[in-house]
Amino acid sequence: MNDYTSLSTAPRRVGDLPTPALVVDRHRFETNLATMADARPGLTMRPHVKAHKCTSLATRQEEMGHHSFTCATPREVVGMAEAGVGTDLLLANETVDPRRLRAMSDVEAATGIMVTVAVDSVATIEAARAAGIRHVLIDVNVGLPRCGAAPESVVELTNRALDVGLAVRGVMGYEGHLMALPDRSQKAAKVRESMALLVACADDVLAIAGDTASIVSAGGTGTFDLYDPDDPVLARVNEVQAGSYALMDSHYGALGLPFTQSLYVVGTVISRSPDWSVIDVGLKSLGMDHGNPTIDGATVWFCSDEHITFSGLSDTEVGDRVFVTPAHVDPTVAMHADMWLVDDVSRSAEAEVLERWPVDLRGW
Amino acid sequence: MNDYTSLSTAPRRVGDLPTPALVVDRHRFETNLATMADARPGLTMRPHVKAHKCTSLATRQEEMGHHSFTCATPREVVGMAEAGVGTDLLLANETVDPRRLRAMSDVEAATGIMVTVAVDSVATIEAARAAGIRHVLIDVNVGLPRCGAAPESVVELTNRALDVGLAVRGVMGYEGHLMALPDRSQKAAKVRESMALLVACADDVLAIAGDTASIVSAGGTGTFDLYDPDDPVLARVNEVQAGSYALMDSHYGALGLPFTQSLYVVGTVISRSPDWSVIDVGLKSLGMDHGNPTIDGATVWFCSDEHITFSGLSDTEVGDRVFVTPAHVDPTVAMHADMWLVDDVSRSAEAEVLERWPVDLRGW
Repeated sequence: MNDYTSLSTAPRRVGDLPTPALVVDRHRFETNLATMADARPGLTMRPHVKAHKCTSLATRQEEMGHHSFTCATPREVVGMAEAGVGTDLLLANETVDPRRLRAMSDVEAATGIMVTVAVDSVATIEAARAAGIRHVLIDVNVGLPRCGAAPESVVELTNRALDVGLAVRGVMGYEGHLMALPDRSQKAAKVRESMALLVACADDVLAIAGDTASIVSAGGTGTFDLYDPDDPVLARVNEVQAGSYALMDSHYGALGLPFTQSLYVVGTVISRSPDWSVIDVGLKSLGMDHGNPTIDGATVWFCSDEHITFSGLSDTEVGDRVFVTPAHVDPTVAMHADMWLVDDVSRSAEAEVLERWPVDLRGW
Repeated sequence: MNDYTSLSTAPRRVGDLPTPALVVDRHRFETNLATMADARPGLTMRPHVKAHKCTSLATRQEEMGHHSFTCATPREVVGMAEAGVGTDLLLANETVDPRRLRAMSDVEAATGIMVTVAVDSVATIEAARAAGIRHVLIDVNVGLPRCGAAPESVVELTNRALDVGLAVRGVMGYEGHLMALPDRSQKAAKVRESMALLVACADDVLAIAGDTASIVSAGGTGTFDLYDPDDPVLARVNEVQAGSYALMDSHYGALGLPFTQSLYVVGTVISRSPDWSVIDVGLKSLGMDHGNPTIDGATVWFCSDEHITFSGLSDTEVGDRVFVTPAHVDPTVAMHADMWLVDDVSRSAEAEVLERWPVDLRGW
């Protein structure tokens, strides 16, 4: 929806929504949240808001008992704090932007909500300190070639952070390269290898920084149940940074996880030909890095900027609503201004619209 | 940039910009516009704003003599009219959304800027009429399996549109399936085949609707110079709907067109490891449907939500700026709130920032 077509009356049914529209199936969504809260209750889960960028959705996660959150951008941290969601916000990412670091330290001071940022270098430590950041986590590379300090540099970085007056709360290490491994036992073994690296660093940090440096943060939706409490290494992971579990997508859906897809992009049929149909959902309303979206009962031919061409669903007519499953939720959500909570997506265009959830954490 | 970190002083250099940031190289951009205005002057070009979603950029196109514009969404039409850019706006796409159709007819009435919408079915004609739309173009399928009426239905649709009181301004047909053909002579032959279909329909419409139904609109950046004025069919195409030529991307850049890349996504190095570097540009700031972006002098390993991991540029340090070439401009631009016009991108972080251009036509 855009301001220029602000709805004069609240939409009652999915069929009332301007399209493309993100809709969330209430029952599936709530089931996903309950399943995760059962497996990783309270502070043992640090939900990642990058998957949804939505304080309304995060509020539901908080209502399930999770009060600490993971963020990928300073904007997510600032927006969560301003909305008063959570008590402990982690920027699980590096930044050296002085304005954004300052915005995070300012919002901590203004709200009392704890802000912690990941650091993996002297430069990120110095930038955090200079901007008034008070708490950091040492980000450790556990095998994914991305951010994170080499394990052998963790002692030096911890000392440096303490020397400049930062409180070191522990370590994090994201084994993102393992999330999508299809074989569960292979995945479990590799996760344990990564976590052994992380736990060794956690011990180093604890020895230097003391008992308050107790956080060992890792994982995601693809590994949430692999931190075996009976395993001396895996039991040390005391919080999981999962995000996709709430909404899911076709990519994660292929992994056999106990979460089901609750997010769809609803489109309207705008053109019909004998052999295909076209809806107003396209590249600008779908994350495409995991490939094409899917439509139940149809074959997606291709996506254009503002269109999907598909065959199947041969009884559709211009004006009908079609439900699209994005291949990758996170970038899809970031393209939309709103999500709409609906009562039961299987009732399609007749599904009742329950709540509007602004996607209010977009940007950086 | 986000409101929460509004810049207290205007950024003077690229190094002052919050990242990820879209920057446009002034010289290359202006050269692209001049090259196109020379090849297709004035109303023979109907620049497509979907490529940039930016009224500031469209104003530059208007200053080159183009006063008619192509849009993909009602939001683009309404935003252009509200900004007073152009005198003749075409929604080259179908919609049956009554609110958005009404917003377009309202903005035409309020501004006097002509609004024309594409129709390809009875349903789209009826929706346009019901919402007060006055002008339509018959959208003809010329080979791309997407929108557009079958050529054999054009007479019936034209009569229907006239019957309900709509002014029919002519035809359009987008040969999008031919844009990226690498062989120029093969492309030219196939474009001619598609345009022969379109011109036959144009003749039908002219015969029914009269001389004011003179528009024959087609093409894009990949075909802009193929409408041979000495060919009896191709000469009939009297406007081209090109958009990408202004900014370009690595996908179009591979076709040997006389336009050069003028848009980059600037990132900041946030993490360095011995074998790779990481910048704060990722899936949420890059259209990914044409694959990974490129970085001069570097090898892109992979993109994450907020990161690119790459090797090369081994002397970079945390905090350095890196210029990324997106594989597909259109969805990339749609992810950003602003573009920044800069003086000379080859001067990298030292390049002077000349103007801020809000990407103000996002959404639907």
